Amino acid sequence: MKLPKLIATDIDGVWTDGGMYYDQLGNEWKKFNTLDSAGVLFAKYMEIPVVIITGEDTAIVKRRAEKLKIEHLYMGVKNKLEVLQSICDSLDIHLDDVAYIGDDLNDMEVLQHVGFSSCPSSASFYIQELCDHICKSRGGDGVFREFVEHIIGVEQLKKIVHNIKLNIQ
Amino acid sequence: MKLPKLIATDIDGVWTDGGMYYDQLGNEWKKFNTLDSAGVLFAKYMEIPVVIITGEDTAIVKRRAEKLKIEHLYMGVKNKLEVLQSICDSLDIHLDDVAYIGDDLNDMEVLQHVGFSSCPSSASFYIQELCDHICKSRGGDGVFREFVEHIIGVEQLKKIVHNIKLNIQ
Amino acid sequence: MKLPKLIATDIDGVWTDGGMYYDQLGNEWKKFNTLDSAGVLFAKYMEIPVVIITGEDTAIVKRRAEKLKIEHLYMGVKNKLEVLQSICDSLDIHLDDVAYIGDDLNDMEVLQHVGFSSCPSSASFYIQELCDHICKSRGGDGVFREFVEHIIGVEQLKKIVHNIKLNIQ
Amino acid sequence: MKLPKLIATDIDGVWTDGGMYYDQLGNEWKKFNTLDSAGVLFAKYMEIPVVIITGEDTAIVKRRAEKLKIEHLYMGVKNKLEVLQSICDSLDIHLDDVAYIGDDLNDMEVLQHVGFSSCPSSASFYIQELCDHICKSRGGDGVFREFVEHIIGVEQLKKIVHNIKLNIQ
Repeated sequence: MKLPKLIATDIDGVWTDGGMYYDQLGNEWKKFNTLDSAGVLFAKYMEIPVVIITGEDTAIVKRRAEKLKIEHLYMGVKNKLEVLQSICDSLDIHLDDVAYIGDDLNDMEVLQHVGFSSCPSSASFYIQELCDHICKSRGGDGVFREFVEHIIGVEQLKKIVHNIKLNIQ
Repeated sequence: MKLPKLIATDIDGVWTDGGMYYDQLGNEWKKFNTLDSAGVLFAKYMEIPVVIITGEDTAIVKRRAEKLKIEHLYMGVKNKLEVLQSICDSLDIHLDDVAYIGDDLNDMEVLQHVGFSSCPSSASFYIQELCDHICKSRGGDGVFREFVEHIIGVEQLKKIVHNIKLNIQ
Repeated sequence: MKLPKLIATDIDGVWTDGGMYYDQLGNEWKKFNTLDSAGVLFAKYMEIPVVIITGEDTAIVKRRAEKLKIEHLYMGVKNKLEVLQSICDSLDIHLDDVAYIGDDLNDMEVLQHVGFSSCPSSASFYIQELCDHICKSRGGDGVFREFVEHIIGVEQLKKIVHNIKLNIQ
Repeated sequence: MKLPKLIATDIDGVWTDGGMYYDQLGNEWKKFNTLDSAGVLFAKYMEIPVVIITGEDTAIVKRRAEKLKIEHLYMGVKNKLEVLQSICDSLDIHLDDVAYIGDDLNDMEVLQHVGFSSCPSSASFYIQELCDHICKSRGGDGVFREFVEHIIGVEQLKKIVHNIKLNIQ
């Protein structure tokens, strides 16, 4: 597989199990998985930028992106394909150079237009049908990391993990 | 299956895994699943109203209903059948026109009187025995979405998912 | 099986999966399961008092006990057998009249002295070895309800669920 | 197996399932498991000190360590092997006397240098390859306890659990 020039990802249902924790006072939680942080590290090591494109607009995702030093964050997105196309234009690459992982209705268009598309095994059958690849992990179980590791390939991955010494966050 | 004129649903144990998170200070949490939001979208697309009927009375469920734009919300309900009958009267429909999903004791009466009854696979055997249909999903794993998708049917569902472009929340 | 005159229960690892949620500010959470509330209802219907005996001392458990109207709550207990013996004395019953469910080291003594002892399937093998009965459920998955339903028996249970109309909390 | 003179452990992905709960306001949660507290008790009973070495630096872990009376806590660690070596020096023991459990990239160096290395079954294959032993439990499911019980051995464990009466926290 040719390496992508950009890795793009949905959040809810991919970086999480889709869980939305609500309290009595108007606050809200998401549960991320530290496993996925290594996916970001691996992409950085390979010099492939990572972009988050999500329909939700919350301080939660902003904080997670900051912690993992993901600079490209698009929240509250209505039309993900439009946003991704505009990112591609600014980077002077094509949709065909993008690897994308998403799990639900508003990811469907993007999944059909990128060079490499994937989803968690927890995605609905009509999402899975659109994808080039289906991860073994469910959303929230480190599926973003699995996605990046799959892109990089086992041989290259083994080299990376023996070379990098980085904090997992 | 004839389409219902109303979809009614319990919350705890259906939209959640039954989990009730308590803290030290009197606050409380529930964990919803973004998967279920598509169930609401599908029902809206089919022009079938969705109503929540729950024994609990919390700001948590109110917020979730608002986010998903579910207008019909009945909380703190002691007698669910009575409330559902009164909703049917106001909509000029019959209990036989209602599809209902619930998972526990206070759902039993309703499950026996509606046109189509279902429960999560996590419900007790004596609840399952009363239902026309048992979902594969457990409560909190997107069982409301599965319930709506089952009602709509695969052929119609495939048409919908290729037609709607809506934000999942 | 002869019905017990008292049902006694541990909390962490039984009513929960053992999870202890800590935040940055000194607050703490437990996740209960609404399934277990029906266990309390069933016991009340059978006129068997329920007592909680836990090594922890938190407002969390106090609130849960209040919501479920469990009047007998012993927290911060160092010696559970001593406390249970004293409860038995005050009720003029014997340890042999008690059914107890617990899952860890500080439950071992009690499990060996009561009339009927049980634990979740998630308990360690050396806890399981001490018990008269091992529930199928893991802690937090409604194991207290399973425990009470087992005590009551299927025939009696079926009668109860068709007779009571109570809110699940 | 010769008993280690020190038990050292990672936190995220071992004492937790890797979950990092973020809210809207800048607060953060981890979910510990009460099962692991017995692991600390067993180690204390055997007079083997327990040390936590984690890349994260949070009040959450500090509170958990205090509750379990783990005195040796190293947070925000960039180079775990360096820190562990320095602990060994101060205790006048060798890396070969240490049993360590960790699950991710920043544990790899330590896992390769200690006397006995283990990881949860949820660790990546390239972590598992480095370890002397792979626990059956996943991170957050009491894997630290399983690790300590494995070190102690079944015969000794059975003696301990019948001797100690201690509160689980």
